[in-house]
Amino acid sequence: MTRKQLVEQVQLKKSYLTVGLDTDITKLPKHLQSHPDAVFEFNKAIIDATHDLCVSYKINTAFYESQGLKGWQAMEKTVNHIPKNILKIADAKRGDIGNTSSQYAKAFFEALDFDAITVAPYMGEDSIRPFLEYDNKWTIVLGLTSNAGSKDFEQLRMVGGDTNQGGGDFLYEQVLKKVSAWGNKDNLMFVVGATKASDLAGIRKIIPDNFLLVPGVGFQGGSLEDVSKYGMTDDCGLLVNASRAIIFASEKEDFATEARLIAQQYQAEMSSYLK
Amino acid sequence: MTRKQLVEQVQLKKSYLTVGLDTDITKLPKHLQSHPDAVFEFNKAIIDATHDLCVSYKINTAFYESQGLKGWQAMEKTVNHIPKNILKIADAKRGDIGNTSSQYAKAFFEALDFDAITVAPYMGEDSIRPFLEYDNKWTIVLGLTSNAGSKDFEQLRMVGGDTNQGGGDFLYEQVLKKVSAWGNKDNLMFVVGATKASDLAGIRKIIPDNFLLVPGVGFQGGSLEDVSKYGMTDDCGLLVNASRAIIFASEKEDFATEARLIAQQYQAEMSSYLK
Repeated sequence: MTRKQLVEQVQLKKSYLTVGLDTDITKLPKHLQSHPDAVFEFNKAIIDATHDLCVSYKINTAFYESQGLKGWQAMEKTVNHIPKNILKIADAKRGDIGNTSSQYAKAFFEALDFDAITVAPYMGEDSIRPFLEYDNKWTIVLGLTSNAGSKDFEQLRMVGGDTNQGGGDFLYEQVLKKVSAWGNKDNLMFVVGATKASDLAGIRKIIPDNFLLVPGVGFQGGSLEDVSKYGMTDDCGLLVNASRAIIFASEKEDFATEARLIAQQYQAEMSSYLK
Repeated sequence: MTRKQLVEQVQLKKSYLTVGLDTDITKLPKHLQSHPDAVFEFNKAIIDATHDLCVSYKINTAFYESQGLKGWQAMEKTVNHIPKNILKIADAKRGDIGNTSSQYAKAFFEALDFDAITVAPYMGEDSIRPFLEYDNKWTIVLGLTSNAGSKDFEQLRMVGGDTNQGGGDFLYEQVLKKVSAWGNKDNLMFVVGATKASDLAGIRKIIPDNFLLVPGVGFQGGSLEDVSKYGMTDDCGLLVNASRAIIFASEKEDFATEARLIAQQYQAEMSSYLK
């Protein structure tokens, strides 16, 4: 999927919502738990109920791998069920030496029909390049994540760098600066958590054009208004993810209807922020 | 597998060899390529030919995921074929927010029968803790990797730290210091590449006791002698990995015999370095 195609979806739907399919099998509605293909049946119902309100689905691979072969199969069926005009993100946090990252790219861009994959930057350039080599696919590199552990390394200060804040850049700022030079705004996005939306202003100075995938709006306490205020570009440039808040909105048989209601709330608010 | 059990294997076999099953389906011997279960058949032959010479097998998950469902199945069969007294490492480089890392731990420690998994540290403590919570399992965190990209972030200098080398610690030193406090020598190892074996002396000052998983001895140009000289502890404390050098020693029908011959060379040299 190209940037143009993605932006068209944003404009058409007046939404930059990503629905996160973190489908924890232990949290499925009771009536589905005995279904032989419970995870896919759940995802199918969620997708069917929300696909006109979101521009992307994000599949958190961990929740599928934890179910073994059956989980991998449910992931494959889920990807194939998502309509073609919607961005399909593998939230896989992969990254390894070059020849191994090439295999991960093959796994998610060829064996599975994803449009995008999240990648961890620790191992540097040759761990990220193989993903960028695919046309019309997206590499989404971890920048500043929304979890408590982001303080441990991402927010450590480096020697040197451009700032004057008692030292140099934060590690995540170095990541944004270096990695953004390896790709471009048409094949590279960054994960930037929403827990401190004001950081987005500084981040936009480093990467003014790249799309940002923003988790942490919802159960992790971020604010959609602030994220949109500080992070939006002329063509939106944001994908805001909500997972549990939408897919587990209800534990009952009405889960898909309830998921749609929450997705509608996100979409309505997003519609008001879009330029 | 406990540290005591692992060290017993080292002493019994006079070896600290890890055989890396980076089983690239395009590099298999021709006579196997048409086999319906080629990857597993290849791995089975390699394991049967080398299991008395190594103390661990490392399965590089990327090469299996790139084959889709069939690949995941080959991985499962391969893990199950490895004898019980040999450490089974998932070289998966996973890591995500806490509830997601818990799912990855479940995937590799429960759904699949691995003893150890490699984990990326970028997202910090809550991304690593869930793996450490398993008894008799090992978390192997990336420290200093052997690829060119290790210069991009791992070898950047941080503000502060304990050294006086024109700034503070390298990022990878901060990782070793912080992460080693989250686990202990009985559940936590680190990946340390062999390309600059002299770095191992400095690394051993930070983590004197943890086992190190050392890739890059073989095709990436590291030296087994130097790694052993600078990295070995009283109870060995090293797992040295060789992948392609062993498993692709021959492209012909004799591949398993040739793999054994190379593994024997590693084992013989290791035997001479063991205390």
